[in-house]
Amino acid sequence: MMRFAIGVDLGGTSLRVAAVDESGRVLERLSSPVKTLAGRDRVIEQLCESAQVLIAKHGASGNPEATLAGIGAGVPGIIHRETGQLRRSPNLPGWENFPVRDELERRLGARVHLDNDANLAALGEKWLGAGRDVDSMCLITLGTGVGGGLILDGKIWHGFLGMAGEVGHVMVSESGSQCGCVSTGCLETKASATAIVRKARAAIQSSSDSLLSKAVVSGEPLTAALVFRCAQEGDDVARRIYASVGKYLGIALAGLVNTLNLPLYVLGGGVAEAWDAYAPAMFKQLQRSSYIYAEGGTRVVQSQLRGEAGLFGAAHLALVAAQTS
Amino acid sequence: MMRFAIGVDLGGTSLRVAAVDESGRVLERLSSPVKTLAGRDRVIEQLCESAQVLIAKHGASGNPEATLAGIGAGVPGIIHRETGQLRRSPNLPGWENFPVRDELERRLGARVHLDNDANLAALGEKWLGAGRDVDSMCLITLGTGVGGGLILDGKIWHGFLGMAGEVGHVMVSESGSQCGCVSTGCLETKASATAIVRKARAAIQSSSDSLLSKAVVSGEPLTAALVFRCAQEGDDVARRIYASVGKYLGIALAGLVNTLNLPLYVLGGGVAEAWDAYAPAMFKQLQRSSYIYAEGGTRVVQSQLRGEAGLFGAAHLALVAAQTS
Repeated sequence: MMRFAIGVDLGGTSLRVAAVDESGRVLERLSSPVKTLAGRDRVIEQLCESAQVLIAKHGASGNPEATLAGIGAGVPGIIHRETGQLRRSPNLPGWENFPVRDELERRLGARVHLDNDANLAALGEKWLGAGRDVDSMCLITLGTGVGGGLILDGKIWHGFLGMAGEVGHVMVSESGSQCGCVSTGCLETKASATAIVRKARAAIQSSSDSLLSKAVVSGEPLTAALVFRCAQEGDDVARRIYASVGKYLGIALAGLVNTLNLPLYVLGGGVAEAWDAYAPAMFKQLQRSSYIYAEGGTRVVQSQLRGEAGLFGAAHLALVAAQTS
Repeated sequence: MMRFAIGVDLGGTSLRVAAVDESGRVLERLSSPVKTLAGRDRVIEQLCESAQVLIAKHGASGNPEATLAGIGAGVPGIIHRETGQLRRSPNLPGWENFPVRDELERRLGARVHLDNDANLAALGEKWLGAGRDVDSMCLITLGTGVGGGLILDGKIWHGFLGMAGEVGHVMVSESGSQCGCVSTGCLETKASATAIVRKARAAIQSSSDSLLSKAVVSGEPLTAALVFRCAQEGDDVARRIYASVGKYLGIALAGLVNTLNLPLYVLGGGVAEAWDAYAPAMFKQLQRSSYIYAEGGTRVVQSQLRGEAGLFGAAHLALVAAQTS
């Protein structure tokens, strides 16, 4: 008997659905652009169509040896765990208070488990990625914003409102700029792709002879990836921007190390790829700001599953739920 | 059959030992000053004598209906959980790497469970104090230093090195002063009794007409409690000092709320008694620095068990261990 699950990763711009077996092998994956602005019902239809294709092909009707354990779905928002509704979903307009889980279960005729996308990325990384060998870890995703997920003793730590892991909104600078949340000086204002672009734009305005300025003047779009390339090519302006990212990541990580004393912190998301540019400043700051880190043993590493972590985490959620139910 | 445990709270200046039954009733408590500088062996002897007095009186030899569940002991230091040795104990010179647990078991002829004093204070508060109605909470102790303990799903969260809960060393100010640990700007440099006295001393030097200055000039010892009294009497200098304590507590709490999303944070230790002087600034900052706190539902309260929390937590540790073994 082969047991598999459908993992769903619904992002602001893409929908990914995969059939994954208990060993973590991907039987098949489907990926499609998603227009969240086209409306909730259209997106749900698209999600169910993809899932149904995979269930028909890899489930009992296609393979008599196969059993569908269920469907796990990661969505960008805060989920009300009892009702399976979205409590908060800035990137999914119109989804709030909609009974997402029940609607998916009704359409797919199978158990559906919803969770926050960053939580599932952390769970995926724990299952098959950088966290394979630990029981507890924290994932920080450095993208347009900064998110996070906590795995404690093998399970997602949700917190009492389902809002745990918001490490992007931990204050790392008293004099920091306004964040999209209610606060100022959040890690997100210092280490997101958005923050890097904002700093780069300001730097270009004050000095025009950097590599970065020249690239932008020549027509390249100003992105965090461009700033990283310039840093790698030795541009001081770009290097300072990533050193600052590293410093504030170090402050945030030190706080996590001192509070939770986990063995592993994993950095994911697009900005995390610029490891060589921010890691030296990050480790220096960590060493300086956490005597527990300085004791040795605590690891900070890059994500191994990269963009796939959430998809694997979603499948794992359904596989584990089926085992324990 | 009545089951009871011996709880021990070993501090830098006092030793408290109590016999506590499963319902949390104190059968008897003993308290004595302790001279940690007199040496480890003398302190261990003193601890065992007190425990033996209580065991003889309340155990099977004194009461045929009574069973000793074991002994729980809180010590100021980091404990190696497998070996029962102290890994780090700045306030107990000469105790490092000494097999404390085994030595106590040998002398007392009963199971001994060691833990960090702040962890046990959190456990006590969870058992019988402000945390009775929640599964998870964080205790922050504001004393000479700032310590903390985390209870997650009813159990102490130790972290992989046994060093979790060090919230006193979370950075709350980038430009903060040097801490006793390796870092700068730790909560401890802003919200401990030591920090309050340091700030008060600086304030007195720059303005001599405050109530605080007059009290000190008249011979009163400069303590955090004196600063609180002056704040209550309307002294602006003293009020500003406590407002600053509140602000930085708010920043630290916001970080914990955003990361762990626990339902309850409890403030204990001597400085916590000055609630009226720091709480308004603390709640204002929390509201400003955590959108999760701003959602409502999260509670921040004063300790209910005060100085007794650790003693009850120690007894509870032994009672629970006996139930599950």
